[in-house]
Amino acid sequence: MAAKDIDTLAINTIRTLAPDVVQKANSGHPGAPMGCAPMAHVLFSRFITANPKNPNWINRDRFVLSNGHGCALLYIMLHLMGHNISMEDLKSFRQVGSKTPGHPEANHGVTGIEVTTGPLGQGIASAVGLAIAEAHLAATFNKPKYELINNDTFVILGDGCMQEGVQAEAASLAGHLKLGKLIALYDDNHIQIDGDTALGFTEDVVKRFESYGWHVQVVADGDHDVEGITKAIQAAKAVTDKPSLIKVRTTIGYGSKNQGEEKVHGAPLGEPDIAEVKTKLGFKAEEKFYVPKEVYDFYQNITKKGEEASAAWDKLFADYAKEFPELASELKRRLAKKLPEGFAAALPKYTPADPPVATRKLSETLLNKVALKIPELIGGSADLTASNLTRWKGAEDFQHADTKLGTYAGRYIRFGVREHGMAAICNGITAYGCNIAFGATFFNFISYALGAVRLSALSHHQVLYIMTHDSIGLGEDGPTHQPIETLAECRALPNLLNFRPADGNEVSGSYLVALEATDRPSTLILTRQNLPQLEGSSIEAVRKGAYVLQGGDADAQICFVATGSEVSLAVDSAAELAKEGIKSRVVSMPCWELFEEQSLEYKKSVFPEGLPVVSIEAMSTFGWDKWAHASIGINTFGASGPYKDLYKKFGLVPDVVSAKAKKVIDFYKGRKAESKLVHPF
Amino acid sequence: MAAKDIDTLAINTIRTLAPDVVQKANSGHPGAPMGCAPMAHVLFSRFITANPKNPNWINRDRFVLSNGHGCALLYIMLHLMGHNISMEDLKSFRQVGSKTPGHPEANHGVTGIEVTTGPLGQGIASAVGLAIAEAHLAATFNKPKYELINNDTFVILGDGCMQEGVQAEAASLAGHLKLGKLIALYDDNHIQIDGDTALGFTEDVVKRFESYGWHVQVVADGDHDVEGITKAIQAAKAVTDKPSLIKVRTTIGYGSKNQGEEKVHGAPLGEPDIAEVKTKLGFKAEEKFYVPKEVYDFYQNITKKGEEASAAWDKLFADYAKEFPELASELKRRLAKKLPEGFAAALPKYTPADPPVATRKLSETLLNKVALKIPELIGGSADLTASNLTRWKGAEDFQHADTKLGTYAGRYIRFGVREHGMAAICNGITAYGCNIAFGATFFNFISYALGAVRLSALSHHQVLYIMTHDSIGLGEDGPTHQPIETLAECRALPNLLNFRPADGNEVSGSYLVALEATDRPSTLILTRQNLPQLEGSSIEAVRKGAYVLQGGDADAQICFVATGSEVSLAVDSAAELAKEGIKSRVVSMPCWELFEEQSLEYKKSVFPEGLPVVSIEAMSTFGWDKWAHASIGINTFGASGPYKDLYKKFGLVPDVVSAKAKKVIDFYKGRKAESKLVHPF
Ligand SMILES: [Ca+2]
Ligand SMILES: [Ca+2]
Repeated sequence: MAAKDIDTLAINTIRTLAPDVVQKANSGHPGAPMGCAPMAHVLFSRFITANPKNPNWINRDRFVLSNGHGCALLYIMLHLMGHNISMEDLKSFRQVGSKTPGHPEANHGVTGIEVTTGPLGQGIASAVGLAIAEAHLAATFNKPKYELINNDTFVILGDGCMQEGVQAEAASLAGHLKLGKLIALYDDNHIQIDGDTALGFTEDVVKRFESYGWHVQVVADGDHDVEGITKAIQAAKAVTDKPSLIKVRTTIGYGSKNQGEEKVHGAPLGEPDIAEVKTKLGFKAEEKFYVPKEVYDFYQNITKKGEEASAAWDKLFADYAKEFPELASELKRRLAKKLPEGFAAALPKYTPADPPVATRKLSETLLNKVALKIPELIGGSADLTASNLTRWKGAEDFQHADTKLGTYAGRYIRFGVREHGMAAICNGITAYGCNIAFGATFFNFISYALGAVRLSALSHHQVLYIMTHDSIGLGEDGPTHQPIETLAECRALPNLLNFRPADGNEVSGSYLVALEATDRPSTLILTRQNLPQLEGSSIEAVRKGAYVLQGGDADAQICFVATGSEVSLAVDSAAELAKEGIKSRVVSMPCWELFEEQSLEYKKSVFPEGLPVVSIEAMSTFGWDKWAHASIGINTFGASGPYKDLYKKFGLVPDVVSAKAKKVIDFYKGRKAESKLVHPF
Repeated sequence: MAAKDIDTLAINTIRTLAPDVVQKANSGHPGAPMGCAPMAHVLFSRFITANPKNPNWINRDRFVLSNGHGCALLYIMLHLMGHNISMEDLKSFRQVGSKTPGHPEANHGVTGIEVTTGPLGQGIASAVGLAIAEAHLAATFNKPKYELINNDTFVILGDGCMQEGVQAEAASLAGHLKLGKLIALYDDNHIQIDGDTALGFTEDVVKRFESYGWHVQVVADGDHDVEGITKAIQAAKAVTDKPSLIKVRTTIGYGSKNQGEEKVHGAPLGEPDIAEVKTKLGFKAEEKFYVPKEVYDFYQNITKKGEEASAAWDKLFADYAKEFPELASELKRRLAKKLPEGFAAALPKYTPADPPVATRKLSETLLNKVALKIPELIGGSADLTASNLTRWKGAEDFQHADTKLGTYAGRYIRFGVREHGMAAICNGITAYGCNIAFGATFFNFISYALGAVRLSALSHHQVLYIMTHDSIGLGEDGPTHQPIETLAECRALPNLLNFRPADGNEVSGSYLVALEATDRPSTLILTRQNLPQLEGSSIEAVRKGAYVLQGGDADAQICFVATGSEVSLAVDSAAELAKEGIKSRVVSMPCWELFEEQSLEYKKSVFPEGLPVVSIEAMSTFGWDKWAHASIGINTFGASGPYKDLYKKFGLVPDVVSAKAKKVIDFYKGRKAESKLVHPF
């Protein structure tokens, strides 16, 4: 079969298979797969080198379908390439328990899906992270004759992604960083859900990406011009100091009677239209889920080339390992997600004799001690380095060498004021493998980034979110910057560990667990203000999520539970009560999620039956009813002023807290404080 | 005094007063005020027409300091203009209870602050909303000879705002909408917190804004070139079919020994440096908080002109009222935030005989009936119109007339896939006055917009967030689109009403309260799937937040509390229990926040002492311990599949729920279910 013929046949196979997949599910998006079939075929058959038999091969080319609703396309391509998606899986598209959910999910059992997409803009932004990771690992591990890492990152994105702020943030940074191995194909079909893009999206995308410093090309006929797409990608590959955007003009739902209209975007075409499409494209109208043998064979051959490339890499790596044994074993260690031996010994320990220090500062001290020991830790701040204190001594910036500001071997990223982009990029950096990404900003501004933080959690990406200025304790910046609802938000999100350490030992313990948690993200929620080093705290105690810090006696009348900066307030309030002969217990609870995972026995040792519990946290009390019989917090917005004045204003001082504790004690005289740990089911 | 001299004197007054303000607070940002003093002086003395004695004058020019951390500048300008900020207020900058908090807060007692800023990017995005509101009201109310509405919206924004995605989204839309009366001055000082913008922000901003369709100019010497700034603003005003960006090259902290460095950004300069600044600028080194009489006089004269303009407008309006009495009284009504008489009568009512309908569809029916009656309702969807069902019959798009797609008199906005920008724009539309803004997307994607939703709440802006596809009930789109933590997030945010109506009557009730709530935003959280019309529901019941829907008898053994789609599940589960002779109560709780505001007596009538309560909600149970003794929900991510399969998978079906309820009944045999409504303090 001639090259042109097999290309046409493969493209038409995709264009007829995709509507079948969607029709059987009676749900989904046929338009994008039909429109993007040529560019996807070109990418997978001519450019993407990967090995489905060794899908985690570190130097594979990455592909991201940023318009994740078009995932029938991705599943079809992965099927053709020999990934673990069978024709049966395509037939159970969007069904409960299938491998082919409504949007592509990374780390959920299907190989070849690099990052989760669907929430628009996330894919292209995470792809920037994938490209950063590639550039960094290449600079770290490559040696003359040994170009171990040199993969490309390919993206298809649509109009929706192009309108999202997270995309704009990441694209601007990608241009700054000159990520030459990032190549994005823009499915320019002039249609979005509301109708023609003329309704609300009339910017000049080419010019915008040029303004970011990208290399931009246009392919006028993306419906047919296979060679044009190919040449554009080749040209993009040839430009090594700029990311590339290729605007590919396409027809959404190509082949449908409604092609070029929004109707074909998000609903099945219907059997009569599908039959017509098939006839038009030379297929049998009645044949469903049909892939011609020639197409299977053709793609099998592509896959074989990928296998060969992967095997050649293994050979290259074996030679590399002889010449650079230490680097090779380091790469292997990072591939295996094993932390360096004995790094934990470097975690700072504190005693109550040590001076009060802000937990953000304790975090900095810790990073100064461990960051150089953990080279897989790569990240930075959204332009708050001097406030977040995330740049360790000796850090080098991740920058293109031309800037003279750093090199790609550097691993401190100047994210700029781009919180959402930062989080999505972190997902990509971790998703690449061999890296643990971190991003930092003020805790309040995690609200800007939740779209991506959610995907860290859903996709099991280990990302550390270092969030400082964690409460009214930030003081004068005022309510616009003071988190109130924010920790409740994070706690309500599944699969996210939220740490709010109370002192130096807990900071060390929090980092320890967060660094060990290879399959979930963490927040490290840190103060601006100084906190004392507490009697009874320890690094290891953090593993349990909550523990009795002080007052373990059986005859305590009241139990305070607090996190972060309010643990010392609990201690001071307990001391206030002690003056009146009232014994209290103080529980420090740096991480709810870890505590929930403990045995009931352990939990009951922390919160014994019958002992009333009062929570203290300088933010919303929302959710604390789960653990506490009464809660002290702030259920309004904060205020602007020196932080000590604010703690006073909001009643977060020992005399007010201890007076409330006495009310709780009185309340439970003559009635039992039922354990919060015992549930009917 | 010559014009040039008084300009210099006024600018130097700002440049010396700002560091005094920050120094006394020992906290704040002197750099931006000192760098932006010339452009601020030009704007306030030559362009902004407003009347501090009538600060709500609808046709005043709007000014937004998008780099809100530079608020010492704004407070100084408002002080000079005669707004209600005294010199004493400047001296209590960033103190508890002062009028001059760390970032500018709208609707907190100081006039002349149009929208809250500080969280970066919000100001410029909200300013797009202010300009939309102006354009819309002008198109609605202006008549030949009566240009009632024609104000400009001026913005100053810095590098931080320029990097935020929310800014990019809003700027792109502003270009599309050709908002000719929006004029933004970009404080291009090459410095951000991490250092030189070369570290991470090297895009070509001029080119980017041109790509959006803005008119862009550059002023090379923003430190001194008062006439250059003036001419650029004049030229911007002359361009009436494009928003304008003026890039003004400035020196951050102009006058300080550290001018041009990040050091002057976010900390007091220190007394010695301030003394030097003053000497350098011709002021007395030792004189603090000094405003020369000439400067006060000069600004008093500006203010007087504003008063005259305001008075002239009143005269114009009086004449207009004679010629167009209906329009005039309509404008008055909208200014007074009074809803049209009797609109509530148009709210649809339902009986159990009516068919099951999705609440998003019920919302559409409602909008079809009331939107034309409430002309102040203006908004749209982030490109999900056909899913959110927010475009009523007869709606006209808000579009520049040149597009032939609508006119500025239209009030349906095609926001594009720009959720964060949409929410920030809605804040501006409502902040303008005379409008109630609404924005729509899938509920899950409110997570993209929380930065702005938070400011709706903090700033008391009435914005309706119409959020459809509110749970796993959306089905096949899967976990990337299914909210789990999202409602907990919204509930934890102060001053936000969250409505999750269960049927048609509750949809009507939710809109009723949301439309009446002039000082807080609301979410309307709606299903994709059909829900039955419930026995016992009513419009008025929603006002109480929660109410006994069914099973008011005193001998119920169990109480279900549910919201939205799970209320009918509670009813079905109660029916299941009834088969076994177990009486249940079903409480519908469309709005937690309203219920919290009810009397204890009422609350106890809903949740009586001793009656165990089980909550049902198809999402995270986080927070439900506040009301319920046991909770049924989903504390993992969702899944992709037909929604009925998903409800089954997650145990949200009557047999599973009723079995759990029986466990609760058993659990509380022999022990009291303590009321959740009685608290120790
Ligand atoms: Ca499109
Ligand atoms: Ca700047």
